Amino acid sequence: MIQSVAFIGLGAMGYRMAAHLPKHFDTVLVWNRNFSKAEQHATEYGTTAVELSKAVQADIIFSCLPTSQDVETLIDSVEIKSGAIWIDCTSGVPEAAQRLAEKLKLQNIDFLDAPVSGQTIGAENATLTFMVGGDVRAFERAYPAMAALGKLIQHVGNSGAGFAVKAINNMLLAVNLWSVAEGFSTLKAHGVNLDAALNCINASSGKSLVTENIFPQRVLSREFPVTFALPLLAKDTGIALDLVHDAKLPAPILSLTQSLIQAASLTAEPNSDFSAAVKMYESWSKITLE
Amino acid sequence: MIQSVAFIGLGAMGYRMAAHLPKHFDTVLVWNRNFSKAEQHATEYGTTAVELSKAVQADIIFSCLPTSQDVETLIDSVEIKSGAIWIDCTSGVPEAAQRLAEKLKLQNIDFLDAPVSGQTIGAENATLTFMVGGDVRAFERAYPAMAALGKLIQHVGNSGAGFAVKAINNMLLAVNLWSVAEGFSTLKAHGVNLDAALNCINASSGKSLVTENIFPQRVLSREFPVTFALPLLAKDTGIALDLVHDAKLPAPILSLTQSLIQAASLTAEPNSDFSAAVKMYESWSKITLE
Amino acid sequence: MIQSVAFIGLGAMGYRMAAHLPKHFDTVLVWNRNFSKAEQHATEYGTTAVELSKAVQADIIFSCLPTSQDVETLIDSVEIKSGAIWIDCTSGVPEAAQRLAEKLKLQNIDFLDAPVSGQTIGAENATLTFMVGGDVRAFERAYPAMAALGKLIQHVGNSGAGFAVKAINNMLLAVNLWSVAEGFSTLKAHGVNLDAALNCINASSGKSLVTENIFPQRVLSREFPVTFALPLLAKDTGIALDLVHDAKLPAPILSLTQSLIQAASLTAEPNSDFSAAVKMYESWSKITLE
Amino acid sequence: MIQSVAFIGLGAMGYRMAAHLPKHFDTVLVWNRNFSKAEQHATEYGTTAVELSKAVQADIIFSCLPTSQDVETLIDSVEIKSGAIWIDCTSGVPEAAQRLAEKLKLQNIDFLDAPVSGQTIGAENATLTFMVGGDVRAFERAYPAMAALGKLIQHVGNSGAGFAVKAINNMLLAVNLWSVAEGFSTLKAHGVNLDAALNCINASSGKSLVTENIFPQRVLSREFPVTFALPLLAKDTGIALDLVHDAKLPAPILSLTQSLIQAASLTAEPNSDFSAAVKMYESWSKITLE
Repeated sequence: MIQSVAFIGLGAMGYRMAAHLPKHFDTVLVWNRNFSKAEQHATEYGTTAVELSKAVQADIIFSCLPTSQDVETLIDSVEIKSGAIWIDCTSGVPEAAQRLAEKLKLQNIDFLDAPVSGQTIGAENATLTFMVGGDVRAFERAYPAMAALGKLIQHVGNSGAGFAVKAINNMLLAVNLWSVAEGFSTLKAHGVNLDAALNCINASSGKSLVTENIFPQRVLSREFPVTFALPLLAKDTGIALDLVHDAKLPAPILSLTQSLIQAASLTAEPNSDFSAAVKMYESWSKITLE
Repeated sequence: MIQSVAFIGLGAMGYRMAAHLPKHFDTVLVWNRNFSKAEQHATEYGTTAVELSKAVQADIIFSCLPTSQDVETLIDSVEIKSGAIWIDCTSGVPEAAQRLAEKLKLQNIDFLDAPVSGQTIGAENATLTFMVGGDVRAFERAYPAMAALGKLIQHVGNSGAGFAVKAINNMLLAVNLWSVAEGFSTLKAHGVNLDAALNCINASSGKSLVTENIFPQRVLSREFPVTFALPLLAKDTGIALDLVHDAKLPAPILSLTQSLIQAASLTAEPNSDFSAAVKMYESWSKITLE
Repeated sequence: MIQSVAFIGLGAMGYRMAAHLPKHFDTVLVWNRNFSKAEQHATEYGTTAVELSKAVQADIIFSCLPTSQDVETLIDSVEIKSGAIWIDCTSGVPEAAQRLAEKLKLQNIDFLDAPVSGQTIGAENATLTFMVGGDVRAFERAYPAMAALGKLIQHVGNSGAGFAVKAINNMLLAVNLWSVAEGFSTLKAHGVNLDAALNCINASSGKSLVTENIFPQRVLSREFPVTFALPLLAKDTGIALDLVHDAKLPAPILSLTQSLIQAASLTAEPNSDFSAAVKMYESWSKITLE
Repeated sequence: MIQSVAFIGLGAMGYRMAAHLPKHFDTVLVWNRNFSKAEQHATEYGTTAVELSKAVQADIIFSCLPTSQDVETLIDSVEIKSGAIWIDCTSGVPEAAQRLAEKLKLQNIDFLDAPVSGQTIGAENATLTFMVGGDVRAFERAYPAMAALGKLIQHVGNSGAGFAVKAINNMLLAVNLWSVAEGFSTLKAHGVNLDAALNCINASSGKSLVTENIFPQRVLSREFPVTFALPLLAKDTGIALDLVHDAKLPAPILSLTQSLIQAASLTAEPNSDFSAAVKMYESWSKITLE
């Protein structure tokens, strides 16, 4: 039985995710580097803001930080309760998950790599998807904690598998984003009505989340709202490509996409949404996707 | 008012499409090169099998043939009724549509390029998508005939625009098919459960019709049912690339995809489904996607 | 026996090429759209500036114009002497060569597509390479005229073959230019001395004309002298890719290179040398190749 | 002053390289895992076959092994003479060079990464190219030993720079090999004479070592002599790509080439020469390059 749950890292995602926990668990501890954020969360949602050393005494410890490096540094600095389960929701590096899981196992602690999808709206509505790697019994014990925050809680394999699925998912997003930009620029160059074309494709075999959602809402609208930063997408495509190379696989389309997204990230204005990657392509084609 | 409708080309799609017409129109003429097919259709659905020269006297003439070349040859061989509208559902070449529309205009005939998506099941249920290029008034006059066979009847631009949207749609299908093969091979090489990964991605930003439908039903099932032949997908990606080059656009991902699909088509077993393109990638990776 | 030779098109290449002809032939006629150029050539080199209609009465007629389109328009406007051989040194389109050769054959005129390499210095020193497509007996009869201007006069196949070889040559130049830019940026990012690296590669298996000449003289020197315009290289890579598609071949590297060069051409400053294509890559990598 | 030189690893390259040393140095020690090879070398060339522990007491120690991993394992197993210089001619990993140089520095030993090019013929004639990374004073002290075996002895940067230049060189070789295969298949499909085309390109801007040497001697001759194994080229392109990723650079052409060479290596017959990578392309194009 889960008695206490902690949440470490109250960013845009974490802040909203942790808000659901008091409805399901008696003791909910929160910690954030900028501690006033934790105190604000406690006031707003009835959680308890505590020191880091205390947070890691909970039965279940969630973390949601920018990179695997941040998680490793933090874990190395604390003494975690024996028997706890650490659920890392960072979009991290599979190798780091394997390293941490092995290391914590020696201290009788389970580590699950459990990145999420669904964005801030999914965090707010507790409809996130959790893609989870690690020990299957730990997964089952930790299930209720994740189920409090998400709709689909899916075990996908051993340690690192969760991070791997997230990286490949984001790579496919990148492939779709760029290829739809190429395709729709071609259509526009030939005088085709883009909204009408989207309608057709969304009822056909070429559809994707990019054609259904990202393109109309972010690109054609010219809004490019900054909800997922382009450098983070570049990082994720890099993680995916590392998986490709570790497996010694050829992957022409993924490799090319990573190069293009990397170039887009290096040339984009600071603080660009991932969808703004299409602007590099627009600078080539001289066609604005609107 | 549409009094008579003809349907030319009773293949897997056309046979099912023409079956709906008698419910909506008094006179429904059918013609097929192998004429016994037309007679069978007449018996089965109450249409009237006629000679080609008579079929082209209808108010609305549908055609559904393998290539634009076939349509041009056929049109050049007949005298079409003045005032008729020709609706070509072939997955054809935009340039051919422009040429035919211009030529027929001189004879007071409208030509609409109106390729469809939805496969045989959509033809059977009259839920096809029509992506239509050509004169907008002709489109409006012909609308009821298409509405009898489809659910979304979308005007997308001038002559050729319909074919262009279809070609780009199929190119995006090809991009997704190949990139999902690369991504899932990578996941399998790292021991990830592919069905679980599909579940996650289908609830996330990387999803597409390929992850939702093609991959589970055709690839992971190892069925590769032959409903859309690989050489036809190769042809369509070629049409898409011609559009790219006519517009003098760079398109790295589409170009690379066309090369890969072309290679897959040249190396595939005869009579392969488009989804079997992944088998070429499997021969590289030595990983079977199952 | 060749009695008279004409040269049409006295640009940077043609002006220098035609200068050698009076040393070998009694009658040398020159014509240029801007006719004062022809008169200047006559004064300087002892050629005879004549009207176009008279130039095309020579036994051998050279042309050296920007595009195949220009050559076709010009040929359509004149009456050429029966029995003449037209040697077109333009970097042109294989299909146009086939069309012209067929058309002129009916008038008892031979057409050879005979693009050259060697740049202005080769034109000046009569050390050009001629890559020649067309009838082999016409080639043999015209040989002395080309031998007066070049060092290697090579028959490569039927009509169009000369243009094809030139297009593929320039495509390989483009591949080398871009890939060396990627490779040397990588070396610079790792602190390698680029001049020393060039020395090594030029003594090894990775060497090319780009590493031996283009990179040190044009790129690392930051000179980018405008001797071969970037849009012309983009045009040539386009011709090469059309050959690929006509043959229905997959060509991943050539296709990708064409996309990149096309993008570089669309984003470059006006009047850029082909070597300035690397500047687009530099804008991605933030590394200046110097 | 160099008094004694050792050579470790008497493979196809090392055996020939070590043969020159007795002409220049009084004491020349050789060692090989299969020790009879060392004894044979001593008999043939007047070197001295010794145990490994004794070989590493020389002033200069050359190594020439399959991979950096092999070199690291070997170095970890011995006690090297203080003040010695280790010259590693393996085509190795830059990171390994940095690690070894740092570690050996603590024992007052210099480590130079000094891969060579020139193949067995260059080893036999002492005309190799050495691309050397590491401390510049160590380079100068070790210069005479390398000069005994090569023609161009080039310092290219700090530790790892030599390996980096070799990896990029081999990547450029791979780019050229594959793109020439695409280009020449296109020419052959259009009926062009390939030998004639090679002549032209070798006198033009598209030339490379591949067009001058590899293609005529290995591919068009259909000989594919096994002098440099395809899996080793795949390994080297992988090292090059790791350099790209470490530097966080986009590199579309290099990335795509690595994927293609990796695929070719995975599908090739065992014991294939690197030039046999074109056979994968031939299986796509159905065109034999001969």
